[in-house]
Amino acid sequence: MRNLTETNLTDAVLAKLESAPNLRFRQVMSSVITHLHACIREVELTEAEWFAAIQFLTAVGKKCDDKRQEFILLSDTLGASMLVDAMNHRTPAGATESTVLGPFHVPGAPALTNGANVASGFPGEPALFSGHVLTMEGNPIAGAQLDVWQADAEGLYDVQRSNLNGRQLRGKVHTNEQGKFWFWTVRPTAYPVPTDGPVGQILLNMGRHPYRPAHIHAIVTASGYEPVTTHVFAEGDQYLDSDAVFGVKDSLVVKFARHEPGAAPDGTVMKQPYFTVAYDFGLPAAKA
Amino acid sequence: MRNLTETNLTDAVLAKLESAPNLRFRQVMSSVITHLHACIREVELTEAEWFAAIQFLTAVGKKCDDKRQEFILLSDTLGASMLVDAMNHRTPAGATESTVLGPFHVPGAPALTNGANVASGFPGEPALFSGHVLTMEGNPIAGAQLDVWQADAEGLYDVQRSNLNGRQLRGKVHTNEQGKFWFWTVRPTAYPVPTDGPVGQILLNMGRHPYRPAHIHAIVTASGYEPVTTHVFAEGDQYLDSDAVFGVKDSLVVKFARHEPGAAPDGTVMKQPYFTVAYDFGLPAAKA
Repeated sequence: MRNLTETNLTDAVLAKLESAPNLRFRQVMSSVITHLHACIREVELTEAEWFAAIQFLTAVGKKCDDKRQEFILLSDTLGASMLVDAMNHRTPAGATESTVLGPFHVPGAPALTNGANVASGFPGEPALFSGHVLTMEGNPIAGAQLDVWQADAEGLYDVQRSNLNGRQLRGKVHTNEQGKFWFWTVRPTAYPVPTDGPVGQILLNMGRHPYRPAHIHAIVTASGYEPVTTHVFAEGDQYLDSDAVFGVKDSLVVKFARHEPGAAPDGTVMKQPYFTVAYDFGLPAAKA
Repeated sequence: MRNLTETNLTDAVLAKLESAPNLRFRQVMSSVITHLHACIREVELTEAEWFAAIQFLTAVGKKCDDKRQEFILLSDTLGASMLVDAMNHRTPAGATESTVLGPFHVPGAPALTNGANVASGFPGEPALFSGHVLTMEGNPIAGAQLDVWQADAEGLYDVQRSNLNGRQLRGKVHTNEQGKFWFWTVRPTAYPVPTDGPVGQILLNMGRHPYRPAHIHAIVTASGYEPVTTHVFAEGDQYLDSDAVFGVKDSLVVKFARHEPGAAPDGTVMKQPYFTVAYDFGLPAAKA
């Protein structure tokens, strides 16, 4: 293994994987090395460009902390996250489609009872989100959990505000015996992904805008069923056809219906206009 | 651009590059996105593996600081650095071959006169490194600069020792009117690349050892000539055929000849055994 050239270098690197103890690791790394080398060859990468790539990746890593995941943002904006998502969730027709997790999920969100307000204390237009969790046959699933989270009316998640503790605008609600859930929140707005880091710069270089259409995140889980990580998008949003992370599916776009002040469907008397949004999640039975 | 699937997602992401202002950037990113997606598809990457990759890249970035470049180490150990090097230095026969820069070069190394000792104060076996910088026709190049650096007798660079200021075991010497240079150092030893970070873990997972054969780094520059970034490797080293960064070329392997105490070729009277190593660097004329 000396005198390696453009021609035989890739084979030499791949040959060194022969003693990798884990077969799956060997398979993945073989593919990574093969495509990394092929990309370098294809574009005849210059040394200055190689160094710019080193500096970019370093800056992406440096931008990550316990509340910011710039590598997930990079994966999202390059469509890699949605590709992984699509390949890992070949859901049957009728099941709720999945979309990206995104970088703002926080484990251990507070438990909420149905009817609670996840946006308590936040300004914005009130919205009552309700729906069911159903089997593929349309039967209700009781005790299903919705782990929901969203940005505020200014397009920022709690973890993006230094004065919040990362437990706002998120929570876990459960379906009742009829498979129904409901909670209050504020109507989400379109927002840009964070652009103050290296991924923001690369979006600019790609000639792309950083906006995501308004949405509410949910991870829906129920014992005996396949979970789904998804969003509900707001109908009419101007970015539905140019989502910065390629996540929009028609089946996830729903109407936020506006209502004048009065009694809301859950009995709450609203003194201001409010919105209702309804969505039924469908979960396939767990794989054997 | 909605309802993207495994089938059409890559095309959708590539299509968004159409308005990238810089054509070269567009070309490079197209290749990066194409190969990133192809790799994910080829191995059917799971979500857990995707997340492990995110965590790995984040850890690589976190390990970088002003004295440690873990992404360069990753590039080196995956053979990417040598591939970029090979493609960018298709040197004519007779010119000194290039090899990796590595992560330990420091700009602004101290100027040294010929005969100086770059390892002054460091334990180890003394070695007198001498040679010429020559044109392709074998004529001497006066005033050529050698920016040299190496690890100490324990295999560590100055920047790896927290008590040093990063200006030891390195320096810039210049050829005299006869195109000749010479300096004292200590005989280098084989050493492992840093294994206390995420790249060390990935080498372990690949079933590879982390060692590099003993070498002295040099960047040789001269006005009117193409520069070369290279090493001189020690003949007989046990790792010449399994360099962790794939950098060894036969033309760069030289003998460290051992001598009993006495007068060295530069007139220095040595009271202990010492080594001599001679290497002539050949530089092609600068491209027009």
